[in-house]
Amino acid sequence: MRMTDLIQKKKRGEVLTGEELAFFVNGYTRGEIPDYQASAFCMAVCFRGMTDGECADLTEHMMRSGDTVDLSSLAHTADKHSTGGVGDLTTLVTAPIAAAGGLSVAKMSGRGLGHTGGTVDKLESIPGFRTALTEEEFLDQVKRVGLAVVGQTANLAPADKKLYALRDVTATVDSVPLIASSVMSKKLAAGAESIVLDVKYGSGAFMKTPEDAERLARLMTAVGKARGRRMAALVTSMEFPLAPQIGNTLEVEEAVRILRGEDPRGYGIRQAALSLAGEMLSLSFGISSGEGLARAEELLSSGKAYEKFRQWIGAQGGDVSFIEKNRFPRAPHRRTVLSPSDGWINRTDTEGIGRAACLLGAGRMTKEDNPDLTAGIVLLFAPHDRAEKGQPLAELYSSDPVKLDEGEEAFLASLTFDPAPASPEPLIYRIVR
Amino acid sequence: MRMTDLIQKKKRGEVLTGEELAFFVNGYTRGEIPDYQASAFCMAVCFRGMTDGECADLTEHMMRSGDTVDLSSLAHTADKHSTGGVGDLTTLVTAPIAAAGGLSVAKMSGRGLGHTGGTVDKLESIPGFRTALTEEEFLDQVKRVGLAVVGQTANLAPADKKLYALRDVTATVDSVPLIASSVMSKKLAAGAESIVLDVKYGSGAFMKTPEDAERLARLMTAVGKARGRRMAALVTSMEFPLAPQIGNTLEVEEAVRILRGEDPRGYGIRQAALSLAGEMLSLSFGISSGEGLARAEELLSSGKAYEKFRQWIGAQGGDVSFIEKNRFPRAPHRRTVLSPSDGWINRTDTEGIGRAACLLGAGRMTKEDNPDLTAGIVLLFAPHDRAEKGQPLAELYSSDPVKLDEGEEAFLASLTFDPAPASPEPLIYRIVR
Repeated sequence: MRMTDLIQKKKRGEVLTGEELAFFVNGYTRGEIPDYQASAFCMAVCFRGMTDGECADLTEHMMRSGDTVDLSSLAHTADKHSTGGVGDLTTLVTAPIAAAGGLSVAKMSGRGLGHTGGTVDKLESIPGFRTALTEEEFLDQVKRVGLAVVGQTANLAPADKKLYALRDVTATVDSVPLIASSVMSKKLAAGAESIVLDVKYGSGAFMKTPEDAERLARLMTAVGKARGRRMAALVTSMEFPLAPQIGNTLEVEEAVRILRGEDPRGYGIRQAALSLAGEMLSLSFGISSGEGLARAEELLSSGKAYEKFRQWIGAQGGDVSFIEKNRFPRAPHRRTVLSPSDGWINRTDTEGIGRAACLLGAGRMTKEDNPDLTAGIVLLFAPHDRAEKGQPLAELYSSDPVKLDEGEEAFLASLTFDPAPASPEPLIYRIVR
Repeated sequence: MRMTDLIQKKKRGEVLTGEELAFFVNGYTRGEIPDYQASAFCMAVCFRGMTDGECADLTEHMMRSGDTVDLSSLAHTADKHSTGGVGDLTTLVTAPIAAAGGLSVAKMSGRGLGHTGGTVDKLESIPGFRTALTEEEFLDQVKRVGLAVVGQTANLAPADKKLYALRDVTATVDSVPLIASSVMSKKLAAGAESIVLDVKYGSGAFMKTPEDAERLARLMTAVGKARGRRMAALVTSMEFPLAPQIGNTLEVEEAVRILRGEDPRGYGIRQAALSLAGEMLSLSFGISSGEGLARAEELLSSGKAYEKFRQWIGAQGGDVSFIEKNRFPRAPHRRTVLSPSDGWINRTDTEGIGRAACLLGAGRMTKEDNPDLTAGIVLLFAPHDRAEKGQPLAELYSSDPVKLDEGEEAFLASLTFDPAPASPEPLIYRIVR
């Protein structure tokens, strides 16, 4: 078998066999197939696509390229994954609801990069919280508490790690089957029986339209089902950040508010977190989506989810008093951004707001950066508000006063003020089962 | 400027600027842009194509990546190029006709690779012939004789050399603008004022249909004209080998026969060589194609071209008596291939016949191979003949008796015997000016 022939075949739009995709994944992981052939192959996939079967095969071989986590000692294992958002703290709310509802949430999360945050960074803003557990500690905690979140181990789907780094520098990221296999190879390797995905569309998302996001959602659920997993996916809008606070400590604070029953002032975080948890319960217990959602709402409003959250944070070494006493530090330098004009805020350049938070120090520009956990943005407007000129729109926080200028500029560039209101898009475009 | 952005731009089907293409060519030649980005870029070009202007810019920068030959001390410089054929010995006939007609033919030629032969290998089958001349010897010989053919110098369009090697292993060869820029960067660097191309279509050619070959021909002539060269291109069929003898010494022998006025038994070589020479004369002297062709025919039939051929071979160190006395050696092992069935030979798998000659030892499998100059195939049938079962179809020659088996198998696999005759395709589909 020659890689050149496989590239040619895909270039012509033909379907590759499982053996051919195994040859590619294994050869590339071992360094026998060079980067220049892999990148030409990925570009051909960008133009020609893949069948569901090809994508399932590709995912399978990428999953098998490294370790797989054995969760068979746990009951009702469930996982969630978001394709990357801004102010997306759903894991912090969804996971405790699901665990309070009797699921085993043994979750591996990533760190943030660029304009999207990472759950591991957020959790590390809680003093004492340990995201590096041994496998034994990890499984033991899930057995006791129902919930543990750790950083991704080094050897989970190394084929994806290598291929993703290559795609990032060869303009081959935005291919539905390549995104699907990248996400699903890691999710399948992480071992949960039930997996719920949040597939975003719009500014800053891989997929620009709801139709494309639905296509990605359908492919990923098909790939998971082909491997015997119970799958569901929400297709959600990114026309606004998901929560009114963006930044690591700021998002933990917001999560705690939601868990305590507060409303997120018109932002979608509560609805998203409940829907994801509802789907996890629905898949795991074989109940309807509606029943799952009702159960999730009860777990949240009764305080059981908040109780589970505190138990989880404590179990993983975090200072629970930090949470209970509202000791959320803010970066020392603050700026209030005033509206430069009158108008309706019908949507935001959500990626731009994420980038503004990143410029304030809340994110990573490169993998080597250490984020400023206390930096970020508190939004003072609600989605679809009318702004008056001079009205405060946001508080920016940074540990470096110089960064406030860059952050403000990027933040303002991501807003538009329309002369008339527009009807809001629903947060959830579709639920794919 | 970032290469990732250039790849993305081409992937979206946008037009790249001259500065962007210069950034790519120069960065890639210097090793600053890695192979994996160049291959993704080439694949995007395969799908999205290029405008004539982009192709001209790409060609220009590839040409400028290395040395350019200064032929300004010569009058009426003219060059020819074929996109690669089987039994394509046109240079051996066309160049002496053109030189006998008063043109300066200062030609750099390649070696054969795979199923296509190279003029340099053919010339080296003449005892004493030197294909490595200093630049001074080269120009001096053209001034005295009107004609010199040397191997391509190492530093002619190094960007193309590097990029072609990459395209070869990443299934990105068959892109019209990439082929055009590859051919034309070297032709422009080689310095002639008038350039005539032979663009082949069909089995074994880059282009499979006459329409695609015409597209390539039009693009290459446009690129040459944009650089101020006089350009013409023939679009020719490869439904049969161009000459009835395939192999290095065998093709020199065939060339000598044509130059002496013999007819190539129904094969296209005489017509192709005359048309190419006619176009070179037409471009250089500003006469019509018909007038150029008539002049070429006169130079051939009068023996002036043969006289020029012998003068050229002698000037470059070759043993002229080898030619005059018909001392063309044949490889020691011979096999007569008999027709396995009755039927009309309406076309051949020409690439397959080239591969059979290669298996007999006449070509190179890899760049490091040394071809067996005396090996090859003598075809005993004419295009569109009816074959009777058991009739001799070819003589195969090799220095290794084992290779006769492989060669015969490949040769027979490239023939089909049809129940009825088909009307012949014209050799020349179109002349593009």
